[in-house]
Amino acid sequence: MTNIARRFDILAIGNAIVDVISSAAPAFLIDRGIPHGSMRLIDAAEAETLYAAMAPGRQISGGSAANTVAGAAGLGVRSAFVGRVAADSLGDFFTHDIRAAGVHFATAPATGGRPTGRCLILVTPDGERTMNTYLGACQELDAADLDAELVAASGILYLEGYLWDPAAPRAAMQAAIKVARAAGNKVAFTLSDVFCVNGHRGDFRDLLESHVDIMFGNENEVKALYETDDLDAAMAELSRHACITVVTRSAKGAVVVGGGHRYEVPGEAVAQVVDTTGAGDLFAGGFLAGLVQGRTLPDCARMGCISAAEVISHFGARPDADLAALVAAKLG
Amino acid sequence: MTNIARRFDILAIGNAIVDVISSAAPAFLIDRGIPHGSMRLIDAAEAETLYAAMAPGRQISGGSAANTVAGAAGLGVRSAFVGRVAADSLGDFFTHDIRAAGVHFATAPATGGRPTGRCLILVTPDGERTMNTYLGACQELDAADLDAELVAASGILYLEGYLWDPAAPRAAMQAAIKVARAAGNKVAFTLSDVFCVNGHRGDFRDLLESHVDIMFGNENEVKALYETDDLDAAMAELSRHACITVVTRSAKGAVVVGGGHRYEVPGEAVAQVVDTTGAGDLFAGGFLAGLVQGRTLPDCARMGCISAAEVISHFGARPDADLAALVAAKLG
Repeated sequence: MTNIARRFDILAIGNAIVDVISSAAPAFLIDRGIPHGSMRLIDAAEAETLYAAMAPGRQISGGSAANTVAGAAGLGVRSAFVGRVAADSLGDFFTHDIRAAGVHFATAPATGGRPTGRCLILVTPDGERTMNTYLGACQELDAADLDAELVAASGILYLEGYLWDPAAPRAAMQAAIKVARAAGNKVAFTLSDVFCVNGHRGDFRDLLESHVDIMFGNENEVKALYETDDLDAAMAELSRHACITVVTRSAKGAVVVGGGHRYEVPGEAVAQVVDTTGAGDLFAGGFLAGLVQGRTLPDCARMGCISAAEVISHFGARPDADLAALVAAKLG
Repeated sequence: MTNIARRFDILAIGNAIVDVISSAAPAFLIDRGIPHGSMRLIDAAEAETLYAAMAPGRQISGGSAANTVAGAAGLGVRSAFVGRVAADSLGDFFTHDIRAAGVHFATAPATGGRPTGRCLILVTPDGERTMNTYLGACQELDAADLDAELVAASGILYLEGYLWDPAAPRAAMQAAIKVARAAGNKVAFTLSDVFCVNGHRGDFRDLLESHVDIMFGNENEVKALYETDDLDAAMAELSRHACITVVTRSAKGAVVVGGGHRYEVPGEAVAQVVDTTGAGDLFAGGFLAGLVQGRTLPDCARMGCISAAEVISHFGARPDADLAALVAAKLG
């Protein structure tokens, strides 16, 4: 441990993205061969074509790790974010919202390059979201953007697997891990999506082998990581590495393995699932906030479930309600 | 009547605006001396200051008359819109959404001038919206943007009082009225807001005296127009001019005077009022769609109430649900 005063409890590095959310009939996906519930990366041309075909939308700031720290900040945890927007109006919107959520955000916007990243989200009547992400300026984040002092001064470094795809941000995250570990801080990582796991299985396994203290994933991601259909086998593998392993199971809640114990926490009831975008992100935000507050692992998971339940009850992946009040009402 | 084939049932001219909607505590308004439930025009500097202080937001296309035709189009009525955005990403968003709603929109975006207009909307816990509008590029609409053939080919010309404030769009609307009347089309007008009525009372009265067939207003706007506290007296004045006079009364529904009769229609029940933005706009959209479909005046008003009830049950002033299906279920 160093003597640096901790300025933040959580520092997240991730994609700085604005979500463009529209309702879509299942046929809209089928006609275009887009797998229901998937996340895929698209280029600028496809983003334009798909957007032109989409129903009227709403724009709400997003980005997986950004959603996580917006949730954590709403739970009273000192949070910071590093990610790249462009100097354009979507970038201004992202910047406003994350700061208004109480998150420290100081990454300089890119000028003259690609525009701010956006995720075209098609929400089907079942509440499931299908995401089509144009990364844009997100890809231009590089190691020079990383303020080593900020990383060292943040208790938990949280990284999203989505950002492992482009090379420059990946290098920035690898550099950040070194700084965090040298400062004696924790490193948390989310597998993000099966496509990320399939694309970077070797890297992700290496990462878990030696560098990650807290790992988040859903059942499919964890199984994909170890190329098995047996969740317990995959979790046993994971538990050999990460100190804490958290597997989310949608409505069924979450399984947490840590400190030699395994806990199953049920999902939180939701009156109506409107849009599942951000469920995993807000789960991670609630869980990490619980850890920072020194709660037990099952209570951390319950904070995750409460936060996820709030965000899926409305459009958009940022909380509408006062998460701290929700947690206080349910957990005290 | 001319022999021009009617390409559209309704052509609206209005502000082309993107709404930026945030929740706000009542104290946020009080601290800044902003009247609860009001609409006011702000300049670029105030827009920036206020936005910086607002909570995280969502961006949803808006603009009063634009909301009205988005609603009418959702009810199966052939609709067109004229209004000015800038060539920027908010302008692209507005353009996408109104077209995706099924509305014909071909006004060229402004380049090099003010950015796309936006309305900073503060929604208090009572669901009431307080609107702070920066008109931006909206003000640059002028008579040269008006395609006279389009006006002549649209059965109803619908105008919003909000757009009476800047001079160039006002002149454009005055020119459009002449074209519409020469073509034997109907002219509909909404008083929009008490501030509009107070600012342009003489103009609005002149307009009603000779040029308007269908007039929309709420109780306060109608009273302000004739500077009286007596709604019936104001409505009697109005009825001397407009063929059809429609006064909306929030949850209490609407009063319609037309064809020598007066009808009172109750408001539509709403499980939870989330955001009243667009209630009057969608009422007008439903009412006008009913007229186009040849419905009775009370049924037109009920279509207005059904459409308004949908839009106040969620954030944003554009319909989320299938309005035609809602009307079919309730009115057949």
